[in-house]
Amino acid sequence: MPYYKDTDIVRYSDKGAEHISDIVVEEYPLTLFLEGREFVTLLCSPEDFGYLVTGFLLSEGFIKTNEDIDSMRIDKDKGIAEIELKGGSILAEKLYGTRTITSGCGRGPVFYNVKDSIDTQGLDKDGLKIGYQTIAKLMKEFDGRAIVFKKTGGVHSCALGTGEGIEIYHEDIGRHNAMDKVLGHAVQKNLNFGECIALTSGRISSEMLIKAAKRGIPVIASRSAPTVLAVELANRLNITLAGFVRGRRFNVYSGFNRIK
Amino acid sequence: MPYYKDTDIVRYSDKGAEHISDIVVEEYPLTLFLEGREFVTLLCSPEDFGYLVTGFLLSEGFIKTNEDIDSMRIDKDKGIAEIELKGGSILAEKLYGTRTITSGCGRGPVFYNVKDSIDTQGLDKDGLKIGYQTIAKLMKEFDGRAIVFKKTGGVHSCALGTGEGIEIYHEDIGRHNAMDKVLGHAVQKNLNFGECIALTSGRISSEMLIKAAKRGIPVIASRSAPTVLAVELANRLNITLAGFVRGRRFNVYSGFNRIK
Repeated sequence: MPYYKDTDIVRYSDKGAEHISDIVVEEYPLTLFLEGREFVTLLCSPEDFGYLVTGFLLSEGFIKTNEDIDSMRIDKDKGIAEIELKGGSILAEKLYGTRTITSGCGRGPVFYNVKDSIDTQGLDKDGLKIGYQTIAKLMKEFDGRAIVFKKTGGVHSCALGTGEGIEIYHEDIGRHNAMDKVLGHAVQKNLNFGECIALTSGRISSEMLIKAAKRGIPVIASRSAPTVLAVELANRLNITLAGFVRGRRFNVYSGFNRIK
Repeated sequence: MPYYKDTDIVRYSDKGAEHISDIVVEEYPLTLFLEGREFVTLLCSPEDFGYLVTGFLLSEGFIKTNEDIDSMRIDKDKGIAEIELKGGSILAEKLYGTRTITSGCGRGPVFYNVKDSIDTQGLDKDGLKIGYQTIAKLMKEFDGRAIVFKKTGGVHSCALGTGEGIEIYHEDIGRHNAMDKVLGHAVQKNLNFGECIALTSGRISSEMLIKAAKRGIPVIASRSAPTVLAVELANRLNITLAGFVRGRRFNVYSGFNRIK
């Protein structure tokens, strides 16, 4: 399915009204059924549904590896993904328990809970070290790939890279979806998260930071700004957070020890 | 509570590493308890909680006017808002009914449902007409107010205006929150939505369009892009959608009849 659509619009300016055709980005509702029960609708770009669903289940704690998924059936026309998990009943219990549903339904990830993040294990201080040049170089490559954004001005991009360059790259109208697609793709490729740098075009909020932390990704970098809560969590979890990466210049907010 | 915080960071560039203090935007988890039951955590900028909660309840269909709220108690230190509604039991039934919870927990509004939007009543074609100049003028005033954004690069802004200028303006780290703050403030001020133009710094997704449609706002304009789904809904509901409003130039995607 295409990411965007030609649309008849009217462009107004001091020269008057002009009827033209312009490209507009698609927004697609994908409803997930887990163990036969409807539980969430994701508004996403209509591509890489398999990666999105896998990454979403990972980020929300329903699976730990790709192997935990017993089957996944995606009906693009109906906008439905049906997922069966191994050991489904235990997970379904977790999902449908009153406490989880009522505390977690947020505007960000569905089962978001700030307390969760405190339980997330911190990263090893003696792990990955990276050079200043690596972050600048990766962000340059990342920016160069922003194809849909340049066409439509309407999507976020996320990636995972190493010192060698970008390994996985995805775009989506939602910044959480873009990150989940990258994470879902990465587990399917068996990527070693501990050696990766996560890149995002959007703001680094607590939710984005927690997604990286839960996978054990030691560095997250953005073209945009972080929030105070994300910086506090990054400090606590020993994650290196870099913001406003633009050209050969950026700010580091936490995990200074990793930068060589 | 302040919107942003001075933070010690390290700025890297070709000149080396420089220890400086920079401003970072706050992100605050506010947990809503409705009729004594925890039901959602909003990640928001810590200001105008009352407007945010009112707007959120409006957008999600739990109240129709400000009068439907019996009491609201906000504890800023604990990050808790306790709300009692008039006729609470009926609304609680709607809220905790299985169907609503399972279909609605999305990454956008909690009780989002695309089918909902089809039920939203379309606007009168013979309603508000506006001049081309009005949209350009309002967006100029809107851009001029983006104070927190200019300081931190981390928030979205939303407003309601008329031919006379901007009436209500709010900022938040979340674009949905910014809109809900504006809508919550507007019902408290008894603003006539049918004469208003909604302005947003962020993308016009289906969720933003539905928020405007549910209040009967006939025009929505953004500095940024719309999605195809938002354009389709705007056409169906007879809402004028203007995007990429920059300087004295913008695109109109629907509801062309309103532009004079």
